[in-house]
Amino acid sequence: MATVSADPAELFERHRDTLEQAVTAIHERHCWTPYPESPRPKVYGEEAAPAGEAAFQGYLGQDFPLDQPGGKDRVVTERSPYGITLGVGYPHVDPDTLVAAARDALPSWRDAGPRARAGVCLEALHRLNRRSFEMAHAVQHTSGQAFVMAFQAGGPEAQARGLEALAYGYDTTTRYAGSVRWEKPQRKGDPLVMEKSFHAAPRGVALLIGCNTFPTWNAYPGLFASLVTGNPVIAKPHPRAVLPMAITVSVLREVLAEAGLDPNTVLLAAERNDEGLAATLATRPEVRIVDFTGSTGFGDWLENNARQAFVSTEKAGVNAVVVDSTDAYRQMLGNLAFSLSLYSGQMCTTPQNIFLPGGGIDTDEGHKSAEQVGADLAAAVSKLLGEPKRATGVLGAIANDGVLRRIEEAGGLGEVVLESTEVAHPEFTEAAVRTPLIVKLGADRRDVYGREHFGPISFLVSTGDTDEAVRLMRETITEGGALTAAVYSTREDVLDAAERAALDAGVNISANLTGQVFVNQSAAFSDYHGSGANPAATAALTDPGYVAGRFHFVQSRRPA
Amino acid sequence: MATVSADPAELFERHRDTLEQAVTAIHERHCWTPYPESPRPKVYGEEAAPAGEAAFQGYLGQDFPLDQPGGKDRVVTERSPYGITLGVGYPHVDPDTLVAAARDALPSWRDAGPRARAGVCLEALHRLNRRSFEMAHAVQHTSGQAFVMAFQAGGPEAQARGLEALAYGYDTTTRYAGSVRWEKPQRKGDPLVMEKSFHAAPRGVALLIGCNTFPTWNAYPGLFASLVTGNPVIAKPHPRAVLPMAITVSVLREVLAEAGLDPNTVLLAAERNDEGLAATLATRPEVRIVDFTGSTGFGDWLENNARQAFVSTEKAGVNAVVVDSTDAYRQMLGNLAFSLSLYSGQMCTTPQNIFLPGGGIDTDEGHKSAEQVGADLAAAVSKLLGEPKRATGVLGAIANDGVLRRIEEAGGLGEVVLESTEVAHPEFTEAAVRTPLIVKLGADRRDVYGREHFGPISFLVSTGDTDEAVRLMRETITEGGALTAAVYSTREDVLDAAERAALDAGVNISANLTGQVFVNQSAAFSDYHGSGANPAATAALTDPGYVAGRFHFVQSRRPA
Repeated sequence: MATVSADPAELFERHRDTLEQAVTAIHERHCWTPYPESPRPKVYGEEAAPAGEAAFQGYLGQDFPLDQPGGKDRVVTERSPYGITLGVGYPHVDPDTLVAAARDALPSWRDAGPRARAGVCLEALHRLNRRSFEMAHAVQHTSGQAFVMAFQAGGPEAQARGLEALAYGYDTTTRYAGSVRWEKPQRKGDPLVMEKSFHAAPRGVALLIGCNTFPTWNAYPGLFASLVTGNPVIAKPHPRAVLPMAITVSVLREVLAEAGLDPNTVLLAAERNDEGLAATLATRPEVRIVDFTGSTGFGDWLENNARQAFVSTEKAGVNAVVVDSTDAYRQMLGNLAFSLSLYSGQMCTTPQNIFLPGGGIDTDEGHKSAEQVGADLAAAVSKLLGEPKRATGVLGAIANDGVLRRIEEAGGLGEVVLESTEVAHPEFTEAAVRTPLIVKLGADRRDVYGREHFGPISFLVSTGDTDEAVRLMRETITEGGALTAAVYSTREDVLDAAERAALDAGVNISANLTGQVFVNQSAAFSDYHGSGANPAATAALTDPGYVAGRFHFVQSRRPA
Repeated sequence: MATVSADPAELFERHRDTLEQAVTAIHERHCWTPYPESPRPKVYGEEAAPAGEAAFQGYLGQDFPLDQPGGKDRVVTERSPYGITLGVGYPHVDPDTLVAAARDALPSWRDAGPRARAGVCLEALHRLNRRSFEMAHAVQHTSGQAFVMAFQAGGPEAQARGLEALAYGYDTTTRYAGSVRWEKPQRKGDPLVMEKSFHAAPRGVALLIGCNTFPTWNAYPGLFASLVTGNPVIAKPHPRAVLPMAITVSVLREVLAEAGLDPNTVLLAAERNDEGLAATLATRPEVRIVDFTGSTGFGDWLENNARQAFVSTEKAGVNAVVVDSTDAYRQMLGNLAFSLSLYSGQMCTTPQNIFLPGGGIDTDEGHKSAEQVGADLAAAVSKLLGEPKRATGVLGAIANDGVLRRIEEAGGLGEVVLESTEVAHPEFTEAAVRTPLIVKLGADRRDVYGREHFGPISFLVSTGDTDEAVRLMRETITEGGALTAAVYSTREDVLDAAERAALDAGVNISANLTGQVFVNQSAAFSDYHGSGANPAATAALTDPGYVAGRFHFVQSRRPA
């Protein structure tokens, strides 16, 4: 263990202003983040980009430097969707050793108290922010995201989501008095007086199960929510996206050691492909919290089997758009085209089902038939992706073969409005880059559009009228879940009906997005990501329920 | 439906000060309640006692006046532990009708918003407070509590716990902005501006499953937590304790109707004995919240089977006391004697296991052998209960035959230190009144003291030393759960060790109680009842986790 060079109380004071602003922001929900989203040299410094790339290159073909308990066994499981060789080796530790180390770290982390825990987490986030370029390369070459997106979503935006969860956890554990002198007047004689203390007791060891596509953005909320409420965390990344979490764990262990705390408060659980380590760890009695992003199948399994744990899952869904009318037809098409194309539709927030009246829609360019809208949307996508360098900057690369297989299958499900085509990547010749597929379906094909087809696959669903479109949105989301919904209309009654249907279905909805805000993007501190109110997720990033299940108040009292 | 005579907004304003004080109290945790605990005429008025008794008498042998959906079928299931005939008939409604009525009430209750919901709930609590004498008789003759206790625990203290839960729910749903104008500066051009709205969406229909011994105190928190967060509630009381909840449901339906809201927002689900209605309702897909107080067996069943619901359970436990030393020997014995005797030990908070070093303890009256402490505790109980009128005022009556059977069985489990004897009730000759049984066991008899023996049954467990006593307290509670723990010691290191063991085991602990504060009593707004951190309960009354799982935030956003 390193010598203590960073007193936790000092770390808290150093970042106190950031924390207080974050706590204010979660309550007021205005636009705020301490982590700049732009990778420009003026923001992060001239040296940040080359230093980050060099750091990333330094990991390749090496054992990742992580001093954890356990033997010398290493695993190498990643392959870049862009085709470069990664070859990074991670420690392979048996579950007993991991769980025992985390369990042993709990009392000291609990007893450090909320300020020390917040101080350590805030310092780690600060260091991660300064390493956002290094993280961008790590996220790009594990998820397949294009570089700028990998920088933003994997760096500052993930950090902001982590800070948001930290703020919720800190706020919820400290907003109630830690001690009180309780005086109860008596009818005769002196009052009864008791000294009472209240401790936020962590639930236990937390298991964080990461995903392939957003290895940090979907992981940081659970990580920091568990940590700030006193729970040690075992981070189990997806075998194809280990490096971003290895860097994260390494930074946290570094700060913990400097603060004189047990570095085993945060551990990396790398595994071989198909080892099933998540299931093994999730059902250990010591593991009392599980955070998961991934398939509905394994998410449901966790909910059903990790019964000793507080389980937060984000799974599949059928995101929907209702198109009724618009006074900005070109802008609507441009906005939708970008949403369908960004990261090749490999976002849990990408629209899948576009419900459109078969009789067409009224627009500022006159009435458009449903056929015309489909053709114009296809044209908007093709225009956006017409130039390979720009196209690959939007699309990134296909993360894994499962996505390619689904694109092939989906092409046979209905009338193809827009073919998915291959794009040659100007820099990485081995990258699989594919444009979005758009398939037209009748409203009766709920067997197809009622389930998720993850990837650049969307359905234009013809409905009898807008009422049916709104109803289908509500019903498919109530049944299949969704993380996002959207509506386009010039009519207030249609917008109201859509918002009410979204409230009934428990999904967040965006209306008339025609500019630079996209339905698949949510802003930390203001937009909720998911709601927990439909089958796509049991939790929202971040709301009170996301943190309240991670600790209990335990009380002691004595006569004064 | 009655004509609207109470505007919800006006109800909110009428009780706003109470609500704001309650919200302050849950955060500051000082001594506070708006509902006076004393049944004296000076407090509730000269007429309150006779009017309450007359109201109670008016129910006997009649159909309870409750205008719910469903047929004319009635059930009569109660018998008074004091032997009087109750014979009250309650509507017997089939589950489909109940669930459909509650589900249909949801949108209007949700759309009423947090202020209207709080206003209705606060007015109902106010009316219940004014009917505390009526409630006292109802609770006495269903639970077996003595009258004054039934008044306090069934009336103002239950109302305070309900208000506390209401305050948590109101605070947690309104402490985050309901809308915001979000402005994101752009490097070039105008900022992005969005208007965002955030709605607290209820989880669904709530099922409240009451218990025999505290039909209102254990029910009001879940009832008001669910209501204020927007969920209609189906109240399913214990078949032996229906009247207190029938009165409560009736008051709520009355206020709802006066406020122009759907009375079916609150429904009574009376059942025949052994009908199993709770299990039927708890697994309905529309039922998304279950609150339960009762046996570990059914509590575990609910946790395992009501998978679609947010389930809060309070079950059995092995409450513990560690006696190490004292500087107030007589007062300690008096305090413990009262705790063992109150309501014949039929409280989920009554101490069961008293861990005591076999070598005895140091006291202000010199060293006392373990034998002597046992004999002196027995004498203290006998002295407290020496006079029948006073004894029955403390003991109340045995709630049901299961308790009597357990007393008989426990007498054969070890060396009897104090026999349980019958006491003739001066007023109700048929009442079963029994004094506490105290049995001495070796520390090796964990098979006996490691499980709950609900009723006036306690064990004096001889340990090698205080360290072993503290260890056994921690281990038995970690394994078997507990709602309370206590320690007596003059040594700061022992108090610290016991408090740390309690924190490890996740149980609330009281130290050196020698006066008029008792380990089995908790004060709303200040003391947590349970913690959720050990097997005795999944929830605490009341903490953020108790309310956060009852709603989700759902968002809509539009460009400004």
